[in-house]
Amino acid sequence: VISKLPQTGTNIFTTMSALAAEHGAINLSQGFPDYSCSPELIELVHKAMQNGHNQYAPMAGVMALREQIAIKTEKLYGARYDPETEITVTAGGTQAVFTAISAIIHPNDEVIMFEPAYDCYAPAIKLMGGVVKSLELEPPDYRIAWDMVKRLVSNKTKMIILNSPHNPTATILSREDIDELSALVKNQDILILSDEVYEHLVFDGQEHHSMARYPELQQRSMIVASFGKTFHATGWKMGYCLAPAYLMQEFRKIHQFLVFSVNTPLQYAIAEYLKDENTYMSLPAFFQEKRDHFRSGLEQSRFKLLPCSGSYFQSVTYDAITDEKDTDFAIRLTKEIGVAAIPVSAFYRKGTDRHVLRFCFAKRQETLDKAVDKLIKV
Amino acid sequence: VISKLPQTGTNIFTTMSALAAEHGAINLSQGFPDYSCSPELIELVHKAMQNGHNQYAPMAGVMALREQIAIKTEKLYGARYDPETEITVTAGGTQAVFTAISAIIHPNDEVIMFEPAYDCYAPAIKLMGGVVKSLELEPPDYRIAWDMVKRLVSNKTKMIILNSPHNPTATILSREDIDELSALVKNQDILILSDEVYEHLVFDGQEHHSMARYPELQQRSMIVASFGKTFHATGWKMGYCLAPAYLMQEFRKIHQFLVFSVNTPLQYAIAEYLKDENTYMSLPAFFQEKRDHFRSGLEQSRFKLLPCSGSYFQSVTYDAITDEKDTDFAIRLTKEIGVAAIPVSAFYRKGTDRHVLRFCFAKRQETLDKAVDKLIKV
Ligand SMILES: CSCCC(=O)C(=O)O
Ligand SMILES: CSCCC(=O)C(=O)O
Repeated sequence: VISKLPQTGTNIFTTMSALAAEHGAINLSQGFPDYSCSPELIELVHKAMQNGHNQYAPMAGVMALREQIAIKTEKLYGARYDPETEITVTAGGTQAVFTAISAIIHPNDEVIMFEPAYDCYAPAIKLMGGVVKSLELEPPDYRIAWDMVKRLVSNKTKMIILNSPHNPTATILSREDIDELSALVKNQDILILSDEVYEHLVFDGQEHHSMARYPELQQRSMIVASFGKTFHATGWKMGYCLAPAYLMQEFRKIHQFLVFSVNTPLQYAIAEYLKDENTYMSLPAFFQEKRDHFRSGLEQSRFKLLPCSGSYFQSVTYDAITDEKDTDFAIRLTKEIGVAAIPVSAFYRKGTDRHVLRFCFAKRQETLDKAVDKLIKV
Repeated sequence: VISKLPQTGTNIFTTMSALAAEHGAINLSQGFPDYSCSPELIELVHKAMQNGHNQYAPMAGVMALREQIAIKTEKLYGARYDPETEITVTAGGTQAVFTAISAIIHPNDEVIMFEPAYDCYAPAIKLMGGVVKSLELEPPDYRIAWDMVKRLVSNKTKMIILNSPHNPTATILSREDIDELSALVKNQDILILSDEVYEHLVFDGQEHHSMARYPELQQRSMIVASFGKTFHATGWKMGYCLAPAYLMQEFRKIHQFLVFSVNTPLQYAIAEYLKDENTYMSLPAFFQEKRDHFRSGLEQSRFKLLPCSGSYFQSVTYDAITDEKDTDFAIRLTKEIGVAAIPVSAFYRKGTDRHVLRFCFAKRQETLDKAVDKLIKV
């Protein structure tokens, strides 16, 4: 059997979580909460199941949920998406990303993306015969040099992938980035895949520059969101895609044959839960407190904190501690110190090592305190 | 945007279910139960959520579930699959089919399949640049002429897709089919994708000839199964794939980037539920009763029953009633008689019309009785 994705091994999240478990380390590697999701939401799922919502949902999702998504999107970003033709519920953000890429990318199409990057973009592009054109960004601020991006554009450029708030770097797109992006794509046939799964995790009163806010960008964007991230239930695997009808039509042609539809009772439950906007409006403050707590703890350590404007990740450099490779140091930290982190080199296809580790702070205060206690001893 | 799947419109299941709803017709079209799944299973999901199983499952699935799948498979088919390397839990059977095809099919690879066929095979093949080589089977018995299959084999043949029990025709592979298939693939580099989502729905004491039973076939097969079908919860979207490690390795490389993992609490619940083998061993009798009830009702009608050896579908011809096209007749039956069925021409890429309608009998006796009352008036 000739492999379609020969370079794929066990991914870093699986590897580090397994290593953490093996060594009884505090697992700040893979991004997921160590506290419970809302008991109210669990009860809503139970109720939906008891009410008999256990058979196929419509292909694009339960209408009540699509309507709530439309309301939320308009409230937050002022954009109206038609639930009938512009919103599709997916089995998590990853399925939405894969489906969007599959729907758009033909062999030899070029896709511009930035690294470090979450690991599912490039393989999907490759599987569709597309070509990745990537720009590596540099710590500490990982700013996008738009003049460099311009040089990557060719007449084969079909898509640009953005991710804000950004995993793993915790940066967010600025208003200037939006202006540069708008100038770049203007009069070009370039679509945008915007991974906004951390949309609610933006700190210090800054705003999330969703593609949905800017009509000229919105018209060419497929936006990916995740209820798993938003509602502290990464294992529920439910997300959605927003796109103007001409793009959503193509998205659904793939979605229909890829999963057909997604879990019905969860959709009913989340539709109900979304009616209370506090369920998501409270998130920035909730996570900002965790960020601040974790950062102030780490400030006592020899790790150097990188900025954190959004997401639930905090990156650090460690030049004052060691000149080990980040993968080696991450393994040693897990085994010897008892805290697992993700080496950010794993987010570069070339494994570029800038001596950065990523910690997930979507954890109970107690967990963060225990981790800090260990990390300040390094 | 150039469509990747230009021919894709709204599928027949969506269309007929919507038409049934619009006209208040009894919906025997799309395949799903109109009764509740097990309350015990619902409680197990609730418990799993309350117990905090709400974060990412391992990429290949919760180990407790994979172990139960291995036990069930060995019990039923005598085949040992290693939970570690040969079993992966998916977001439904459709995702497993799509992933298997994506993992194996390269541009210009040929795939042999039979029609009528469930509608997700051909688009996935096409999306991967593969070529469909299809053989149309004929009612009433839809037998596979293996000498014709042999003629479809070329040095580009990469895969053959089988589906037993079969949707929509309700046929099952026989021991002779297995022998013919074994002879066909022997010493050839042909893999098998075996859609066995109706594995438990085999009637009259016949046995399900799973690819897992036959070592020489098992070694080249990716087998797809569905908990949605098995546990009367099509909306839960949970299934799995069985394959020898060298194939499963490739399957997982796609799965990892396509969904990463699937719903965690459902996996825990199903793992628990599977411990009682009666949950699936009782299915043949359960559905056979429905089949017999529906068939004996329809015998009083002018519809002619086709054989039904497996699945929860009953096909009929209607030459004594009308010479309308099956799509036209299905629409008229929904609107005027109040019973929705699937026109089997929708399962042929060319729309081949052999005047066959498919009814789903996974319904309460009361529903079947009401439908029969209407159908005998035609
Ligand atoms: C799907 S496992 C990875 C979770 C995550 O988003 C991360 O840790 O970056
Ligand atoms: C995914 S909707 C179709 C359900 C089904 O298997 C059928 O009706 O054939």
